[in-house]
Amino acid sequence: MSTPLPILKEQIENYLSKSLAADVDQATLRDAMNYSLMAGGKRLRPALTLATIEMLGGTLNDDLLRAASALELLHTYSLIHDDLPAMDNDDLRRGKPTNHCKFGAGMATLAGDGLLTMAFQWVADNHLPANIRSQLTLELAKAAGPSGMVAGQARDIEGEHQHLTLNQLRYLHRQKTGELIRYAVLAGGIMMDQSAEIKQELAAFGENYGLAFQIYDDLMDVLSTTEEMGKAVHKDADEQKNTYPGLLGVDGAKEQLQIALAAAGQNQKNLEKLTGKSFAGYDDFLAYFK
Amino acid sequence: MSTPLPILKEQIENYLSKSLAADVDQATLRDAMNYSLMAGGKRLRPALTLATIEMLGGTLNDDLLRAASALELLHTYSLIHDDLPAMDNDDLRRGKPTNHCKFGAGMATLAGDGLLTMAFQWVADNHLPANIRSQLTLELAKAAGPSGMVAGQARDIEGEHQHLTLNQLRYLHRQKTGELIRYAVLAGGIMMDQSAEIKQELAAFGENYGLAFQIYDDLMDVLSTTEEMGKAVHKDADEQKNTYPGLLGVDGAKEQLQIALAAAGQNQKNLEKLTGKSFAGYDDFLAYFK
Repeated sequence: MSTPLPILKEQIENYLSKSLAADVDQATLRDAMNYSLMAGGKRLRPALTLATIEMLGGTLNDDLLRAASALELLHTYSLIHDDLPAMDNDDLRRGKPTNHCKFGAGMATLAGDGLLTMAFQWVADNHLPANIRSQLTLELAKAAGPSGMVAGQARDIEGEHQHLTLNQLRYLHRQKTGELIRYAVLAGGIMMDQSAEIKQELAAFGENYGLAFQIYDDLMDVLSTTEEMGKAVHKDADEQKNTYPGLLGVDGAKEQLQIALAAAGQNQKNLEKLTGKSFAGYDDFLAYFK
Repeated sequence: MSTPLPILKEQIENYLSKSLAADVDQATLRDAMNYSLMAGGKRLRPALTLATIEMLGGTLNDDLLRAASALELLHTYSLIHDDLPAMDNDDLRRGKPTNHCKFGAGMATLAGDGLLTMAFQWVADNHLPANIRSQLTLELAKAAGPSGMVAGQARDIEGEHQHLTLNQLRYLHRQKTGELIRYAVLAGGIMMDQSAEIKQELAAFGENYGLAFQIYDDLMDVLSTTEEMGKAVHKDADEQKNTYPGLLGVDGAKEQLQIALAAAGQNQKNLEKLTGKSFAGYDDFLAYFK
């Protein structure tokens, strides 16, 4: 029994909005963290975790919501720090001024630090078994840290004025956005205490889905207007950032997107075979690219 | 059997220097993280954890070293972000150029993010029992996050041009430096799976020790030269930061220092009564203020 995606999103929003304040002990910091967290994201990452839990036969509760929503805290931190003057120096995010434009770069840095640290608090501070909480902590730290997302961001800064090969670009993207999406799907398997084989297939679905997501994001940057996106577009090309369309052209990038989606579809079928359960719930997530 | 403090420091340095690289997958990021981590700190926080373990009857091994050294990763992140142009804008730390002066503010932000995230990885990625690893994750996140250290930093930014009362200043310092030192001592009790009563007394020792540490640091800023300190001094007063000597004068601050040390001494005696073991090992840490 799968909860429809818009309802999952609403449950995550409600959980975030009711729970953030309790763990923040300074008024401006709380406002700054809340400002970016409640700025209206798709909640894709925690929704992937929760949908995975339901497809594996789990029933959602506050402990699972807390552990899953931690990833949205972490994702929001990465956006705040990415937008900083010292990094991408973006003024607009989801159609609103970025955190540092509103609260100053010092407070924005702290808001990011706070969200990152709180993500680990939420993963540890719930009633799931201790061995599950430790696994989540470890996998989240590996995905988000200096062997995962942070390494991708460092590579991005360094690669800005270099021409990357397709393999280098794929590696950069896997670290920068792929690892967190991979974790989102894997986390559902960890919370449901699945076998190593099932967890591996879940992680593989997450990897392919994450790759598709990044190619699609690159394509949208080329094909959309600022109004549609709520952030600056054509910025990647202007800044000579390495992207799929930049490297392969729009048609070549679309082709890579289809390859990634086909691979995710195969993981979906494998999961059905391995578990004897339906993973049709992922169709809603794959429909995002249609 | 207590390992002397200089040997503990050496063991921590060795562990940090041999272990950092394995978990960082980007060359400049690795250099930036390593630069600040190996810039020669006192290693006070992990040393407090390890000394506590030994006084409680434990024998040090690589798992305990890893979990304890995580706190040094976290402490180093806080220094890097604190020094950033958007925060304190410091050029000198431990007699060397600060991280952003050497690597740029973008890479310094990422080095901090990487060290913070890796701290949680090290706490989860060892062979201690899962319930101990979860407790460490939770307590570390609470101490370092938006209800602890990050809240203190936000309060510090906001309080710069306000006159704080002694109670407000004490609260700020408890969050900004006290919480991590409290955690350092508590963590030893968690790793040795002690009773709630003992863990509470360990935490209280850490709180009082942390308060003494902060007052002493404020006093040194007033009484020392740049050469002795390896960083800019008299900076707090120049920037109208709230400090103990600023609020109480040098003599008043010295008096508060003695009160905090006496309270820590009382916790030390209570711990001996509670456990039937010697806590004379803390004398070396208290000697720091002589």
